[in-house]
Amino acid sequence: MGTDRPAKGRLREHVFRIIFGTGTPAGRLFDVLLLWAIVISVTLVMLESVAEIKLRYGRSLYLAELGFTALFTVEYLLRLWSIDRPIRYARSFFGIVDLLSILPTYLGLVFGGMHSLMVIRSLRLLRIFRILKLVRFVSEAGSLARALRASRRKITVFLLVVFAITVVFGTLMYMVESPEAGFTSIPRSIYWAIVTLTTVGYGDIAPQTIVGQALASFIMILGYGIIAVPTGIVSAEMVRTNNDPGMECMSCHATGHLDDARFCRKCGAKMPLQA
Amino acid sequence: MGTDRPAKGRLREHVFRIIFGTGTPAGRLFDVLLLWAIVISVTLVMLESVAEIKLRYGRSLYLAELGFTALFTVEYLLRLWSIDRPIRYARSFFGIVDLLSILPTYLGLVFGGMHSLMVIRSLRLLRIFRILKLVRFVSEAGSLARALRASRRKITVFLLVVFAITVVFGTLMYMVESPEAGFTSIPRSIYWAIVTLTTVGYGDIAPQTIVGQALASFIMILGYGIIAVPTGIVSAEMVRTNNDPGMECMSCHATGHLDDARFCRKCGAKMPLQA
Amino acid sequence: MGTDRPAKGRLREHVFRIIFGTGTPAGRLFDVLLLWAIVISVTLVMLESVAEIKLRYGRSLYLAELGFTALFTVEYLLRLWSIDRPIRYARSFFGIVDLLSILPTYLGLVFGGMHSLMVIRSLRLLRIFRILKLVRFVSEAGSLARALRASRRKITVFLLVVFAITVVFGTLMYMVESPEAGFTSIPRSIYWAIVTLTTVGYGDIAPQTIVGQALASFIMILGYGIIAVPTGIVSAEMVRTNNDPGMECMSCHATGHLDDARFCRKCGAKMPLQA
Amino acid sequence: MGTDRPAKGRLREHVFRIIFGTGTPAGRLFDVLLLWAIVISVTLVMLESVAEIKLRYGRSLYLAELGFTALFTVEYLLRLWSIDRPIRYARSFFGIVDLLSILPTYLGLVFGGMHSLMVIRSLRLLRIFRILKLVRFVSEAGSLARALRASRRKITVFLLVVFAITVVFGTLMYMVESPEAGFTSIPRSIYWAIVTLTTVGYGDIAPQTIVGQALASFIMILGYGIIAVPTGIVSAEMVRTNNDPGMECMSCHATGHLDDARFCRKCGAKMPLQA
Repeated sequence: MGTDRPAKGRLREHVFRIIFGTGTPAGRLFDVLLLWAIVISVTLVMLESVAEIKLRYGRSLYLAELGFTALFTVEYLLRLWSIDRPIRYARSFFGIVDLLSILPTYLGLVFGGMHSLMVIRSLRLLRIFRILKLVRFVSEAGSLARALRASRRKITVFLLVVFAITVVFGTLMYMVESPEAGFTSIPRSIYWAIVTLTTVGYGDIAPQTIVGQALASFIMILGYGIIAVPTGIVSAEMVRTNNDPGMECMSCHATGHLDDARFCRKCGAKMPLQA
Repeated sequence: MGTDRPAKGRLREHVFRIIFGTGTPAGRLFDVLLLWAIVISVTLVMLESVAEIKLRYGRSLYLAELGFTALFTVEYLLRLWSIDRPIRYARSFFGIVDLLSILPTYLGLVFGGMHSLMVIRSLRLLRIFRILKLVRFVSEAGSLARALRASRRKITVFLLVVFAITVVFGTLMYMVESPEAGFTSIPRSIYWAIVTLTTVGYGDIAPQTIVGQALASFIMILGYGIIAVPTGIVSAEMVRTNNDPGMECMSCHATGHLDDARFCRKCGAKMPLQA
Repeated sequence: MGTDRPAKGRLREHVFRIIFGTGTPAGRLFDVLLLWAIVISVTLVMLESVAEIKLRYGRSLYLAELGFTALFTVEYLLRLWSIDRPIRYARSFFGIVDLLSILPTYLGLVFGGMHSLMVIRSLRLLRIFRILKLVRFVSEAGSLARALRASRRKITVFLLVVFAITVVFGTLMYMVESPEAGFTSIPRSIYWAIVTLTTVGYGDIAPQTIVGQALASFIMILGYGIIAVPTGIVSAEMVRTNNDPGMECMSCHATGHLDDARFCRKCGAKMPLQA
Repeated sequence: MGTDRPAKGRLREHVFRIIFGTGTPAGRLFDVLLLWAIVISVTLVMLESVAEIKLRYGRSLYLAELGFTALFTVEYLLRLWSIDRPIRYARSFFGIVDLLSILPTYLGLVFGGMHSLMVIRSLRLLRIFRILKLVRFVSEAGSLARALRASRRKITVFLLVVFAITVVFGTLMYMVESPEAGFTSIPRSIYWAIVTLTTVGYGDIAPQTIVGQALASFIMILGYGIIAVPTGIVSAEMVRTNNDPGMECMSCHATGHLDDARFCRKCGAKMPLQA
């Protein structure tokens, strides 16, 4: 977001500073109002799905919905209008989220109103993704994301291994257990293996035979033990990134010197002794 | 609590030292007695809620309850009387907990006795919060609290992300699964997503369709994996606070000496002995 | 165990070396045989509890049981006889475990045979504790135990906090939910809170109301998050103990020097430079 | 695999480089094709186990199955032919997996067709182990495997302790709970203890008595707490392996230089550039 710039023109620059910026009182107020609009709008979508509430307040909810859609539409258009490269914004993560926040309602209006097709009604539920607009407000996410990105490959390997384990054990359980216990097909048995390995354990499918229970015990203990792996990966990464950048050299500004370094590792200049 | 001081007057100072202090034998004895009073009192509230026990021992429990309330009332009043700034104490965390420990019983007495209004009876259950008085005895909590406080923001971000995930996946499941499987509304589906992501897995709501089970598998593995994030945050924080820089040498300012070092590891100068 | 010494006399010393030691081929053979005896004996106790197996092989199992009891009795007596301080051994952890391994069978013989009193039969099941004899074979447990011992206080505080949370939320759920959902008393509601906070989630008790499910969601996310605390404690402790003992001083044999130390931190002698 | 060499002869060397190697474009293409073949083949086995799909597409699935078997047979034979020590390959882990991937189909053809013997069909499911061939593609697994191997003994001790705990508590629960609650034998009670300790919690077996629920609560909190142990072990190990000692200076032998250091931090001498 740091490289975004306002489009030319006084009004546009002003609007840009309010909508995209947080440095002015007006910009901060806009953020707070937007935050509340998102939270209320998402809550309304949730409430609408409860049968009793829809029966009683259906009409009011629909009107409120139209209002919020109008609001978010204005916000979206203003963003497009005030930024210098609107296409780039429209194709960015936030641009797509902003568009998805308003599109379902319009689709519902076009394709036959509120109560018609199931597909359209389902689409309208996608308005709940407005919650992703909240991510804009998260500034602390950076160091978390960095630690995750640095461990990306190790985590992928871990997930691959987990997947292979569930496939193998799901198949074994399908061979060992009867369909009556719920192991009716291999995909379903793999589903059970995932439920068990991740220690979720619904209990809708559960082994009945001795051999099945022994296998299940093995998967459980495995799942209980290997959760240590992603945890260890992320912990180690965070311990590493938590470590100081180290002393800085006065002449070349290189960092990463240990506390007792006496010469700069980059330019060889003498380092000052630590006070 | 360290800046609390007794009110003026000999008796008050004496009482203060017994009630708030732990340095004298009387103070320690008071703490032990209070500890037992809290534990027994909380146990009685629990027992009273078991139907059979209440039927048989209801009267004795009620009398014991009155006795403990009297005891805690005296304790509360003595605290108010012996401290120099009673208002500040009354508005502190422990002051409020101490008041809440006795208030419900008195409300029960005033508003129509023991067996009358449901609301009042519920309020009386709040006496169970006396358990929070135990926190007073916890001195080791400091470093835990510090580590948690230092990671506060990262944990908030993490919880926000977790909440956003559950909202999005709860809605998707509501669209995909039928109400018969338990996904009757978005809030309920979000509840299911939380139950699944945290690997609790009651099993009262469980996906039945292939698509639903695939989505559920994804949430489970996600939940199994991202638990590494808060764990990594706290681990890294604790490793960091565990890492003392160590003592510093007075003549060459080298650091990294263990607590029992007697000579500087850099210049060989004598280190001061630790008190 | 390191300070145990054989009783005087040639034969006793010889027996001691076989039973307590692992340095001679005979000592190692004894350990392997004992290991198998424990494993088979524990397996037999388990099998005896399966109704069909007991019906068919009850008599053989009983005879095998008598045989193993005789074997472990001889082992116990030989240990008492060959050690120089038998009382100390008898009162040690392993002494008590060794006694408990044989006592239940004798109690069963004395108090009316195999099929009589329920209490005695239950006692006989305690033979399963023979599994604890296996702990003797675990030599790697040291560093684990050290890390746990060092974090003992923090873990106690953590468990106290967890217990307080479950008491408070169990009571709240008892107030909010109906007995029909399974929340029939405060102790039972606390049991539910523990099941939920630890992410076990049986599902035999589950909230039905919106408020109850909201509270439950809170506990779940709390439980999902605070598992980071014991994990962080133990990780930090292990990272700390994993760190090298450091260089050793040639003149006073003190350890704990960093790699770049030039003077001993204990005696001030010059340290050799690392090659 | 690093010490494998091609058999003599031009063509064999060429084939070897494609099948076993990843250094040439052809070798990489082969790997990608093989990967897809495995994934599709495994998917087909899964789909075949779903009753409705088998009914409709049974014949096509059977033909595809024959095709994949032919393909993997050719691959297996080419591997045997192009390597210099075919026996060693055939007896290696992947050699056996490769053989197991094709054997069940041939057995099915010989012993009476596709729908006949249940045992043969079960064998055919072993083809699923083809997914283990995916491990070949994982290069990042190395550091994970190293950390796990380094903690191998501690993890074994941990698993032994976990097993001992479940045996002891399973037996106690068998003594305390009635068979009606599902605790019909000690092995089944131990199974329950594993389900509970690992926080899976199916709920098919759940304690009903107060004492049983108290014991269960204890196991849950224990399981919730000791998961910190494997996590701590692996985290500590990963932190350790993450901590490079860094480059060493050639003239003063000081360590702790980052990879991009150009001057020694102790004596200021020039460091060699990293290749």
